[in-house]
Amino acid sequence: MSDLPVVGIVGLGLIGGSLARALRAGQHRVVATTRSPDARTGARALGVDVVDGVVAVVEGSDIVVVATSLAVLPDAVAEVATLAAKAEHRPTVTDVGSVKAPIAAVVPAGARELFVGGHPMAGTEHSGWAAGDAEMFRGRTWALALDEATDVTRWAAVACLAVAAGSTVVPVDPAEHDAAVALTSHLPYVLAAVAAGGAEQGRHPELMRSLAAGSFDSLTRVAGGHPTLGQEMAIENRDQLATAIRSARLALERVEDDLLDGRDDAVAEVFDAGRRGRQRLVDAARPAPPTTVSLGSTGLVDLGRRGGRVVAVHAVTGAEVEVDVTVPGEPS
Amino acid sequence: MSDLPVVGIVGLGLIGGSLARALRAGQHRVVATTRSPDARTGARALGVDVVDGVVAVVEGSDIVVVATSLAVLPDAVAEVATLAAKAEHRPTVTDVGSVKAPIAAVVPAGARELFVGGHPMAGTEHSGWAAGDAEMFRGRTWALALDEATDVTRWAAVACLAVAAGSTVVPVDPAEHDAAVALTSHLPYVLAAVAAGGAEQGRHPELMRSLAAGSFDSLTRVAGGHPTLGQEMAIENRDQLATAIRSARLALERVEDDLLDGRDDAVAEVFDAGRRGRQRLVDAARPAPPTTVSLGSTGLVDLGRRGGRVVAVHAVTGAEVEVDVTVPGEPS
Repeated sequence: MSDLPVVGIVGLGLIGGSLARALRAGQHRVVATTRSPDARTGARALGVDVVDGVVAVVEGSDIVVVATSLAVLPDAVAEVATLAAKAEHRPTVTDVGSVKAPIAAVVPAGARELFVGGHPMAGTEHSGWAAGDAEMFRGRTWALALDEATDVTRWAAVACLAVAAGSTVVPVDPAEHDAAVALTSHLPYVLAAVAAGGAEQGRHPELMRSLAAGSFDSLTRVAGGHPTLGQEMAIENRDQLATAIRSARLALERVEDDLLDGRDDAVAEVFDAGRRGRQRLVDAARPAPPTTVSLGSTGLVDLGRRGGRVVAVHAVTGAEVEVDVTVPGEPS
Repeated sequence: MSDLPVVGIVGLGLIGGSLARALRAGQHRVVATTRSPDARTGARALGVDVVDGVVAVVEGSDIVVVATSLAVLPDAVAEVATLAAKAEHRPTVTDVGSVKAPIAAVVPAGARELFVGGHPMAGTEHSGWAAGDAEMFRGRTWALALDEATDVTRWAAVACLAVAAGSTVVPVDPAEHDAAVALTSHLPYVLAAVAAGGAEQGRHPELMRSLAAGSFDSLTRVAGGHPTLGQEMAIENRDQLATAIRSARLALERVEDDLLDGRDDAVAEVFDAGRRGRQRLVDAARPAPPTTVSLGSTGLVDLGRRGGRVVAVHAVTGAEVEVDVTVPGEPS
């Protein structure tokens, strides 16, 4: 993929603004729209073509990245996808939302082949253009959804963008994505909020804060982040998150019963299982050597299920894309 | 308090070994016993008087710090306290265990006035002498228990040690300590273990690990720590931890119901409350200017309940100790 596509970005907040910086650093042409005066000035200084409104972005770009806040993302994706389907050059549309099935569901039928849902697993507790960073996506994973409507050529083009921004790409079914992030992202936000808020309700909250250990600090870190991201993710991923909460609280109830009934071996096993899980998480972050394979849509989703990631995108032939992949944690 | 006491340390693991280093750096004489050959060699090189067994430690020191692993700590405290009560010089006995009421309960009646329960809120995921660090306690809080049996002069002497090691001291009732750390330390360990272990039980655990966000990494960090500390703390603080787990899972059940019943305002309020709690935690870590006060046992416990910490120890007069205190987060 040698000719760099022109990338449109709708919204230049933390994620959109970071992506604009990363792509400009990589010599992409970027067309963007934003309501923030700071972002307009900052983006122009980087050579971004700042335009007014989504129509101009869709008209002027090959791939449109919808990077608004999650609360308005479904409407923005629906609008951009509708415009893209009507445009003669039929640009690809992607998004950066932390849920994938509900976003895919708002894409109109005529635009589904243009759409590739995305979720860069990056961010900080800050928000807005000023908090952006060209290195935001470096070494992170970027989930890219595949379903029966996905055009592998367009998927590969979006994967190239994610790789250009420094990420590795996890191919994933939208519903499986949402179930996974309910456990690995949204549940942690709920636990952080419940723990940080719960400590306020004790008899001596000031004493509790004095006795807050590093473990409490780690647990509650994300409770102090973006003012609405937690609730937006929770509400967008309502059913999957409710399932994840339910399994967590049933597991907690077992620990509580084991403690009160003196089943200390069972308590120890909970900690042992946690230690094994944590070790596998650490192992999965270790780089693995890449291999080159050609995969279609099903093969890509299977790769993702095995923990595989795309680290480079080569040519597309028919419905298959030649990619370099790594599967961390698997013996090589 | 100008004449430095001779400090005995029973056990030179992560905490005992770090304390030995910190006190030697501050010119204290230190007498210690340990079964670890590495620790014996390392401690001798620092000028620690390494002896064989607790009898020699008790005989040779003014304050004995029992710093064994939590699993054997109650037995070790009982043994050292019994020896101390029989010794002519009646040394003070303290410990570094992460629960306080169960430890206080094993101190024999004749030794209760010698005992001051302690809990330095410090540590890492490593263990053993080699992982120790003279700076381990710098800037951390060190809880020191007070109850009706506590001798304020001995309490002040142990507080001096904690301050010498770089910590600020939180005076605390033993049962209130255990309730607070159940929420702020032991519950985070349980949540980390349940989350890290639970992710293994999903349909595609490798995919989940690929999609683990920074929030999951923070949440599960302590699940990978010391191989038995989590379960030892849980079992020693059984009832208080069960209460903390129960309140967490009831809060989670409310979030689950609110999500499924579409009460999005209630979901938002959970995140808002978490944000307020996290902000207060961050504020409480900010230094506050010290003031000098004279406090007895009740006044010290009240100070701790308000989030106050002792940062310097001056003279003891009768049953009151003159101390410099800070109350972070309170308007000064």
